[in-house]
Amino acid sequence: MHTGFSPGRRLTLAAVMIAVAGLLSAPLIADEGMWLFNAPPRKALQQQYQFTPTPEWLDHLQRSSVRFVTDGGSGSFVSADGLILTNQHIGFGEAQALSGEGHDYARNGFYARTRSDEKPCPGMEVNVLVSTEDVTERVNAALPAELSPERASAARRQVIAAIEKESLAQTGLRSNVVPLYQGGAYQLYRYNRYTDVRLVFIPEAQAASFGGDTDNFEYPRYALDICFFRAYENGEPARLEHYLAVDPRGTNENDLVFVSGHPAITQREFTWAQVVDYRDHLLPHWLDLLCRVEVPLSVYSGRGAEPARQARDLLLDIQNSRKLVGGQLAGLLDPSLLHGLQSREQAFQAMLGNEARFTDAHAAYKRIREAQDRISQNQVTYDLIEGSSWRPPYAFKGRLFQIARTLVRAAAEQSKPDGERLPEYQDAHRASLELDLFSDAPIYDEFESMLLTDSLTYLAGSLGAGEPLVASVLGGKSPAERAAELVHGSRLRDMAERRRLYDAGGAALASSPDPLVALAQLVDPAARQARKVNDDQEEVLRQAHAALAQARFALRGLELYPDATSTLRLAYGTVSGYEEQGRPVPAFTDLQGLYDRAAQHRDQPPFDLAPRWAERRGHLDLKTPFDFVCTADITGGNSGSPVVSRAGELVGLIFDGNLQSLVTDYAYTERQARAVAVDVRAVLEALPQVYDAGPLAEELLGHTGTASR
Amino acid sequence: MHTGFSPGRRLTLAAVMIAVAGLLSAPLIADEGMWLFNAPPRKALQQQYQFTPTPEWLDHLQRSSVRFVTDGGSGSFVSADGLILTNQHIGFGEAQALSGEGHDYARNGFYARTRSDEKPCPGMEVNVLVSTEDVTERVNAALPAELSPERASAARRQVIAAIEKESLAQTGLRSNVVPLYQGGAYQLYRYNRYTDVRLVFIPEAQAASFGGDTDNFEYPRYALDICFFRAYENGEPARLEHYLAVDPRGTNENDLVFVSGHPAITQREFTWAQVVDYRDHLLPHWLDLLCRVEVPLSVYSGRGAEPARQARDLLLDIQNSRKLVGGQLAGLLDPSLLHGLQSREQAFQAMLGNEARFTDAHAAYKRIREAQDRISQNQVTYDLIEGSSWRPPYAFKGRLFQIARTLVRAAAEQSKPDGERLPEYQDAHRASLELDLFSDAPIYDEFESMLLTDSLTYLAGSLGAGEPLVASVLGGKSPAERAAELVHGSRLRDMAERRRLYDAGGAALASSPDPLVALAQLVDPAARQARKVNDDQEEVLRQAHAALAQARFALRGLELYPDATSTLRLAYGTVSGYEEQGRPVPAFTDLQGLYDRAAQHRDQPPFDLAPRWAERRGHLDLKTPFDFVCTADITGGNSGSPVVSRAGELVGLIFDGNLQSLVTDYAYTERQARAVAVDVRAVLEALPQVYDAGPLAEELLGHTGTASR
Repeated sequence: MHTGFSPGRRLTLAAVMIAVAGLLSAPLIADEGMWLFNAPPRKALQQQYQFTPTPEWLDHLQRSSVRFVTDGGSGSFVSADGLILTNQHIGFGEAQALSGEGHDYARNGFYARTRSDEKPCPGMEVNVLVSTEDVTERVNAALPAELSPERASAARRQVIAAIEKESLAQTGLRSNVVPLYQGGAYQLYRYNRYTDVRLVFIPEAQAASFGGDTDNFEYPRYALDICFFRAYENGEPARLEHYLAVDPRGTNENDLVFVSGHPAITQREFTWAQVVDYRDHLLPHWLDLLCRVEVPLSVYSGRGAEPARQARDLLLDIQNSRKLVGGQLAGLLDPSLLHGLQSREQAFQAMLGNEARFTDAHAAYKRIREAQDRISQNQVTYDLIEGSSWRPPYAFKGRLFQIARTLVRAAAEQSKPDGERLPEYQDAHRASLELDLFSDAPIYDEFESMLLTDSLTYLAGSLGAGEPLVASVLGGKSPAERAAELVHGSRLRDMAERRRLYDAGGAALASSPDPLVALAQLVDPAARQARKVNDDQEEVLRQAHAALAQARFALRGLELYPDATSTLRLAYGTVSGYEEQGRPVPAFTDLQGLYDRAAQHRDQPPFDLAPRWAERRGHLDLKTPFDFVCTADITGGNSGSPVVSRAGELVGLIFDGNLQSLVTDYAYTERQARAVAVDVRAVLEALPQVYDAGPLAEELLGHTGTASR
Repeated sequence: MHTGFSPGRRLTLAAVMIAVAGLLSAPLIADEGMWLFNAPPRKALQQQYQFTPTPEWLDHLQRSSVRFVTDGGSGSFVSADGLILTNQHIGFGEAQALSGEGHDYARNGFYARTRSDEKPCPGMEVNVLVSTEDVTERVNAALPAELSPERASAARRQVIAAIEKESLAQTGLRSNVVPLYQGGAYQLYRYNRYTDVRLVFIPEAQAASFGGDTDNFEYPRYALDICFFRAYENGEPARLEHYLAVDPRGTNENDLVFVSGHPAITQREFTWAQVVDYRDHLLPHWLDLLCRVEVPLSVYSGRGAEPARQARDLLLDIQNSRKLVGGQLAGLLDPSLLHGLQSREQAFQAMLGNEARFTDAHAAYKRIREAQDRISQNQVTYDLIEGSSWRPPYAFKGRLFQIARTLVRAAAEQSKPDGERLPEYQDAHRASLELDLFSDAPIYDEFESMLLTDSLTYLAGSLGAGEPLVASVLGGKSPAERAAELVHGSRLRDMAERRRLYDAGGAALASSPDPLVALAQLVDPAARQARKVNDDQEEVLRQAHAALAQARFALRGLELYPDATSTLRLAYGTVSGYEEQGRPVPAFTDLQGLYDRAAQHRDQPPFDLAPRWAERRGHLDLKTPFDFVCTADITGGNSGSPVVSRAGELVGLIFDGNLQSLVTDYAYTERQARAVAVDVRAVLEALPQVYDAGPLAEELLGHTGTASR
């Protein structure tokens, strides 16, 4: 199995030639790939594992797999009654939102002993992929050659919106057009939506993230990173045809396993120039930024238990991102990996040769380099005042500004034809947008003020306090004064006011005395401009990568998987340990290991045992496997993904990758990179013995519930 | 008293005219000023407090005041037997260095019950100022007009070195020429040096920094931030003529108090353009940098008790700097303060008028702006590869690199005439340099590796991994690999090797196989270049500020105090609370408050009571005053400064300023800015009741010891 991936140092021309030959004969590394369910790696599975997934096997796994729209992440249906298994760190935000003084579910855990105790999660949505359809031709037909990037982008956005709207109208299903192969193909994905989702069980944070930020992205691990939700339809638990049976025997070293989930984003098709830009500019910039954000959050958390509770979700998110970015940067600063990427690119360019049909592909490299440079130069401003859908602009952190911006943009966008709108404001996304906007997740004034004070300070430091936009934003006040005025003067925490402004639209907003609405309006033109610069260059990248993708197809056929795009993928691999600094790291940990590690650290945070785990030690079979690693090719977004056996039965769930796996966003390696999962046997042991949640274990085992397969 | 300082918003011309008038009639704000002992604020003290310090009063206080050379900071002699009182956070580094596995003095505290238990602190040095002498004429005579900045700087350095060397030879005293008034005057300071300094008492960190980073720079406070050392001469406790008597009655609200200490640096004479540069560029840059350094240190600390111990000193230092820089930035982002500075400058320029004798002063503003711009542009590189004597270069953190650089530079510098050397390598500083270089403070390989890995990652991210210097530094390896190779391959932790290389000098270094020595050599030319750019522009600033200082003298006489320069100063003020967000903050806290605050935070870190304090609660008079605030004008470097009464007796010691005081580096304000001190009554209560250190309290009260005044 472990052929490893150890790209050469400085390559001689001969080595490049060998690599060229190799590219055609041994196209993929061992267990590499995040495969489309409609184009699974049949050949590799057959050759390496003598396994061929049947269409039924694939369909069942696909329809049992769940995507968390609001919080990102993956999960699976695990009972006929709509029970969903995912990670505690996916459910954490919901548990946080359900908490208040006196009942801190995120910290202390929660278990609904009866269905009526299950807690509705306002604003939460999960999706299940029910069908896919290729729409590449229709998208490309809408894009005549020689359009400017801006017009091409608008035209593509328009045709995609039309396809999505049409599909929604026809099927009532959530419909998303997904660009694949860096824009080489487009597929229409249709999802069943579940918007009544309730919290069933979440363990205390100490048990789920034992070892905290210290052990995050590390292995061995001792974390029960699980959480159960239940999907409801019409006020009743959803009745499901497809859900995963649980194999109480779990899995063993060297077993073949599959991971079905929603990897968010990979950059495997990046050119060398792009990877160098990430190494030298973007990742260092993000690492600086994340540290700059993490410190004030830690300081705020240090004020006491209640501030810590308010900040915890964001702090964990930032720490996780910081370790992720740091790990990727460390990976890219390994010259051997960079040389490997460079040689692969040189080899591919050699394969292109001088053939006329590859002229576009050759030219693409220069276009990509130039566009990447422009994106990079724009990035500081972009991160500062525009941000992305999943990351608020760093100059205006906090939930209140996000609400203000959504109101301002919704009014502007909804007056346009659907196809000309920013994607997140198109009709197909309206339901999700409104769920988020009208979520009654609590808003903490002091926390909002701190975030905004720090944001505005960062803005002033980045552009200068005297820069005209900054001066307008600050309005002659210090960041602290201005933040207090914005937070205390805003009525946006009032749901009725939010609804009124949303329904009334543009004119009401323009005349609104709400200082946050006014701020969002003030910043919007510059923010849109930063986004436009970015989007235009992304369009150039898309077109150039499409040219490269076409050349790859011409040379390689369809035996490739596309880069991750937050859509459902199938990965596979072997349950297997690895070596680190000369020492073997075993594939499995067990419950005994948890107690050992806590003792080693004298039970000090973040290695303190949760009180229940300390009390119930005598109830547990300490030989029970706890966490395990496998070589399956995963990334962020795979959190909560079911790990299934050849029989398609649940043996665990992914909750992390190790540090060495972080660089696989750019290039897969399986020498040390591993996906980290909770073993289903730990789940079945802990639920009854630690949490008195025997009925939940019974439901997992199919012994209870209203339906069976 | 509290006339306040509330500079106008946008100033009208009329307001400027009023300000001009005001400048001449009411030159200083209330308790402003860090005064020279040889030019004390007699008039202000007489007018405001009907107090006139006698020469004997001043001389006694001066000779009882102690300067910590190695760790920075202040203190005082408090017994005839050489007992020194300072802050725990000044002694912390020494306690850390004396610790090892099994005895963690920095964390758990230390008390020497007998003199023979007192712990020598290798590398430690304290100084006492014994005389000052004006040498302005001699320095200026060595600088003919029209020298280039570089040659002027070299000439000044040369004459200063000559004066210092001559004085050292004549008197045997440590001799430093101190530039004052931004280069408007030069004085020769002579110090008694004590190099055999022993640790007598340090409390556990929990008690000294109760509230940790959360309460740092805040008030109210409950911190016993004290530490006792003893100066030895010839193996015996130093016998002193001058030391401070302790007043066990302490001080009261509205009392006049004095602070004698070594404020490090203020920028009160900065032009408006310089302040704006700090606000828009330098402070934000440093805040980013400090956060970027703080996070990996926190992560390393999270690995366990021993890593936390190794990192604690540096982490506390970084957190302290981060809060300081953040507080200064917050202060400068208050537009009213900036407008106040601007109006002061406009008023001064109006005073200069068109008089021919002030042509240079007028021109100085432009020269300052240009030089400041150049310094600012150079700062990233400077911080990265050169650093300063008190802050290592961020690209090469850790003690080992510091040793390597000192060896490399010492060899190069010591081959030059004394006056042409970098100041820290001149003969007058040789003893301190060697003490530091040959200190046997422990070096932790894993900590060094982590610091270097992170440093090299930061270097690559700042300049790009492919930049020629960076590529040479990394030598084809990843930062982690390269750091491991540097740390594990170096023999510099071996004291004999350090001595051998220091004694052998240039040729031995050039041929040394030590990878860290080679690295220091590789980087040195670029680092020196960054320093030269900085120093040349600092010289321009010095000359331009000297022109402004001369104009100020011409208009205002000598009724001014110079900016702080880490030399002995006298401040004065009133013990007084203040108002914050409409709520009164009282001047004193008491021991009861400590227990209340711990209970409020459920005894969770950093608000957990030290075990001794929990146990001994019943032994204490909880009404005993603990900490207090006063309006005296202090800054960093004043830590440990004695607070004395009109009678010149010790009533407390400074350990902090509140957040609102941080901006006073640029402009004094006493509306909310306060110096924070430990009350001597808390010291006298805690020593016997909590620490069983009654004899130490007795020595403070003059009841024991071998001498009396």
